[in-house]
Amino acid sequence: MLKTNHTTIKRRISKIRSYLNKNNLEGFIQPRSDSYLGEYVPKHSARLEWLCGFSGSAGEILILPNKVLLFVDSRYTLQAIKETKNTGIKVILVSEISLIDWLKNNIKQNITIGFDPWLYSVSKINEINKFSQKEKFNFRSISLNPIDLLWENRPKKPSSLIVPHPIKYAGISAKKKIKNLSYNMKQNKADAFIICQPDSLAWLLNIRGRDLIHTPIILARAIILSNGDIYIFINKNRIDTKALKHLQLCSRIIKIYSEELIFKLIRELITKNKKIWIDTTFTPHAIVYSKKIKSSSFIKKPCPIELPKSIKNKTEIKGSIEAHKKDGTALCNFIHWLSTSKQKITEISASEKIDNLRSKQSNFICKSFETISGFSSNGAIVHYKVSKTSNLEFKKNNLYLVDSGGQYLEGTTDVTRSIAIGKPSNDMIRYFTIVLKAHISIANAIFPCGTSGHELDILARKYFWQEGIDYGHSTGHGVGSCLSVHEGPQRISKGSNTILEPGMILSNEPGFYLKNNFGIRIENLMIVEKFKKNKFNKKLMLSFKTLTLAPLDKKLINYKALSKDEINWLNDYHLLVYKTIGPSLTKEKKYWLKNMCKEVK
Amino acid sequence: MLKTNHTTIKRRISKIRSYLNKNNLEGFIQPRSDSYLGEYVPKHSARLEWLCGFSGSAGEILILPNKVLLFVDSRYTLQAIKETKNTGIKVILVSEISLIDWLKNNIKQNITIGFDPWLYSVSKINEINKFSQKEKFNFRSISLNPIDLLWENRPKKPSSLIVPHPIKYAGISAKKKIKNLSYNMKQNKADAFIICQPDSLAWLLNIRGRDLIHTPIILARAIILSNGDIYIFINKNRIDTKALKHLQLCSRIIKIYSEELIFKLIRELITKNKKIWIDTTFTPHAIVYSKKIKSSSFIKKPCPIELPKSIKNKTEIKGSIEAHKKDGTALCNFIHWLSTSKQKITEISASEKIDNLRSKQSNFICKSFETISGFSSNGAIVHYKVSKTSNLEFKKNNLYLVDSGGQYLEGTTDVTRSIAIGKPSNDMIRYFTIVLKAHISIANAIFPCGTSGHELDILARKYFWQEGIDYGHSTGHGVGSCLSVHEGPQRISKGSNTILEPGMILSNEPGFYLKNNFGIRIENLMIVEKFKKNKFNKKLMLSFKTLTLAPLDKKLINYKALSKDEINWLNDYHLLVYKTIGPSLTKEKKYWLKNMCKEVK
Repeated sequence: MLKTNHTTIKRRISKIRSYLNKNNLEGFIQPRSDSYLGEYVPKHSARLEWLCGFSGSAGEILILPNKVLLFVDSRYTLQAIKETKNTGIKVILVSEISLIDWLKNNIKQNITIGFDPWLYSVSKINEINKFSQKEKFNFRSISLNPIDLLWENRPKKPSSLIVPHPIKYAGISAKKKIKNLSYNMKQNKADAFIICQPDSLAWLLNIRGRDLIHTPIILARAIILSNGDIYIFINKNRIDTKALKHLQLCSRIIKIYSEELIFKLIRELITKNKKIWIDTTFTPHAIVYSKKIKSSSFIKKPCPIELPKSIKNKTEIKGSIEAHKKDGTALCNFIHWLSTSKQKITEISASEKIDNLRSKQSNFICKSFETISGFSSNGAIVHYKVSKTSNLEFKKNNLYLVDSGGQYLEGTTDVTRSIAIGKPSNDMIRYFTIVLKAHISIANAIFPCGTSGHELDILARKYFWQEGIDYGHSTGHGVGSCLSVHEGPQRISKGSNTILEPGMILSNEPGFYLKNNFGIRIENLMIVEKFKKNKFNKKLMLSFKTLTLAPLDKKLINYKALSKDEINWLNDYHLLVYKTIGPSLTKEKKYWLKNMCKEVK
Repeated sequence: MLKTNHTTIKRRISKIRSYLNKNNLEGFIQPRSDSYLGEYVPKHSARLEWLCGFSGSAGEILILPNKVLLFVDSRYTLQAIKETKNTGIKVILVSEISLIDWLKNNIKQNITIGFDPWLYSVSKINEINKFSQKEKFNFRSISLNPIDLLWENRPKKPSSLIVPHPIKYAGISAKKKIKNLSYNMKQNKADAFIICQPDSLAWLLNIRGRDLIHTPIILARAIILSNGDIYIFINKNRIDTKALKHLQLCSRIIKIYSEELIFKLIRELITKNKKIWIDTTFTPHAIVYSKKIKSSSFIKKPCPIELPKSIKNKTEIKGSIEAHKKDGTALCNFIHWLSTSKQKITEISASEKIDNLRSKQSNFICKSFETISGFSSNGAIVHYKVSKTSNLEFKKNNLYLVDSGGQYLEGTTDVTRSIAIGKPSNDMIRYFTIVLKAHISIANAIFPCGTSGHELDILARKYFWQEGIDYGHSTGHGVGSCLSVHEGPQRISKGSNTILEPGMILSNEPGFYLKNNFGIRIENLMIVEKFKKNKFNKKLMLSFKTLTLAPLDKKLINYKALSKDEINWLNDYHLLVYKTIGPSLTKEKKYWLKNMCKEVK
């Protein structure tokens, strides 16, 4: 999307205000997400960016008669201020004051705030309504988003074709997955389940698509009946003969309806007294609170697809290992290029290089997110997005942080390396070593069944806390299989109570960011597996197996600060990298990698 | 209490059944606790023990027409089986199946089970009732406990005098504490608060007593009004002139009513439309669900005394340090005696020795719990209670575990040491070293404000999990100040979400128990404090300061398995022990202690 100038933004806000005025509304809220409530939105649905210029992956704007406030998290404060410069929009750090708390503190006269019910989940609106009781503000669902009325030259709706995801990558047939889902629905006395998460739909039906630039899915909803019947709500043109054949193998009855017919089917089910299962955190408010739909017909429970999707099957695990081999090859070639290139390197040329190397790997679909390529002080911006104006040229004696990943048919990757350009400073070595200790602590964790990511988080952070420092993001997030690079429900993070189970893939990515100086992050993906070296076998223990394969920069390690166990982990890991990636490199690069991975004592 | 033989127990159960029969009940449940719902009960209220012989500190019996089941936790399975031998009572491990689940699985015809509403909290009965909905069993409150009818020669009710706890130990006057409580009540729109926990009453009014053998409190309830008025429900004879004078200084109005008048006051308050604050986990069901009492008059929120009680003030902290000096002196004398005594030593003679040495310290009130003195395999029984029949004589080349503590006017202590008698085996050294690493990991923890005990727990357990082992108890519990040795709300334990705050005292006591072989536990008390060596001072960090002072047995440590940091901790700790305790020992013992605490490298 072209950057919008501040006068255009002011005009758009003013038009929204006129619309509100005509509709007896004093305020309007617009989040970043679209009606699929996910992290990534297609250009067609980038309403927040159209309205205010802010392009981050999370945020919410509040338009009031005399104020416009943009609420963002700590990753995006700087970017939001920059992108909304001269528009009169005030950027607010949401951890300091939430939108609701701001309203509580500032609204003295009764006002009504409109919201688009497609862009907020049932649970979010319930929460908002609960908090706004007894307050001077209330929220009203509006039937038409004013942005949709005002947006000229709007990008087209995504309309990629449904592509079957072959069983050799999916591991389990869609038919089998639907059978398991049906069983689960019957156990929970549900007659139907509404799938509102496109990646859950993709997983269940073994289909992929290209509606988003970084996640190979199609944006659509579906209803599955407990007898296995499938109703997909999507434009028929998006299903070619091959896809139709695939879908017809999934179930006895498969119907393709246009999007808006979802209400018709829901009403029919309700008329027949059927019970419909929804996960309120993923279901847009519009679906449940539409006219003529009784809320009591819904069973509100966590999505039954989330957990089986997160626990990878044998084929998906094999695929992920394969994808990481290819990804590791691209990365090793990249790091070799970095250390040997005679040309001048910039953040942009480096990111183009890694993207290009990755794209040459077989079965590569797309990047799994926009590459973060941050040199020196730009490395300290956690979600840095290089632009022509921010682009730094690499100079000696500094640090470079590169966070990138790919979508392959076999699986999804996500890796961060911090690399010394020239000679690193003592501080860089000191902090890199802390980050490494934290990373190894998670990688080496052994824990009983029943342990959550909440419990493991401290194993990484303790090394930071000892120094009075910390990092503002999770230690790890779940990752899909040729699906979303951020996939729930598992996480390694305070407050994440999902129990870790064998087959779950998670990132391990502690980091340290010294503002205006440099950033460090070491990120590998890992898979939860049964711990095999259990001497006692009294308890079933779990551990992690690291999937990502790329050397760590030894110039940045203070070996004196590492324990014997930590040194062993490093040597074992480097040996694995060399043995696995070495054979796919040229002779010269293989020799270089051998040296990078040489054992230390 | 004299041990009851099995025919007596059978007769008692049969009499209970007759009573149930006459009252149209099929079942009866009796827990260990009395109407104060605490861990310790006076002999007068040891109903469970009278009924079935089981003397553990937690358990619940279910009497049915053709079955008697005793539900206990893992600490007490062996003891319960032993104590109920030949009675026909079946002992059930509650973690395998709870009483409710047992009923769900086994009751096919409708039955009604009676319970004494004084012995169960409001929240417990709500939970029971919720689970028993739709089941074939229901619970009915009974106005008279059949045990109270049948118990002949029942020990007298405790009737110790109220003793004022001087300000030089309490640190804050009762008047000030009540003022703070009143403020809190007003903030929460409560007109009155019912104190059902005797240790909270003792803390609030700065009073102590001798109603229990190990906790210096009086068993009584009180109601505090938001204007500061105090109503204590207790026999007037238990308040002498000195105590009355002390109480009269606490508030403008202080009334002493007999126990049963609590209902009268509650009814009066309700008639006047007053709102009464209760903590449902500490309030007996009988108090809220008595006739003529409207449940809607109650504000159900966590007890407002728990948190200020758990955060020790400066005087209490100074007191605790002082108490630990005395306790450490007793312990060092004890360990010296163990290692030099020419006489034969048994578990009983050893426990008499430590109890005697402790009792000679100034301001000693009583033991803070029954000393656990377990040699060899008896050390593997977590809550071992030595008896004449179980008493083992110390022999060479084994382990001795001693867990003991004292109540001093200055504070409460609780310490465990595992000591090698003769030459320890390699296994003993290996496991002791694991326990030590876990102990040091907690002792050395540095963490930000907002961290709970749940999060810290893994810092100790990770060393066990690596070996496929674990321990079945918490890593740490809260401790009172001249009050209960197990005091909430803070704990270091999975599921404990209480935020740790400066001034809280906790135990640090990982352990390892090899059944039929030996037990190891290292327990020190610690206090949460602000971390002073914070280099960055960006975040306020917290850490622990160890209070307990007694050497660890170096014969049991494998130094090769310790990191430099762990060795440093050990040396620093031993130096502190020697410097603090040395001066109170005789010359000979001081020399011995110096050697015990000698620096290692």
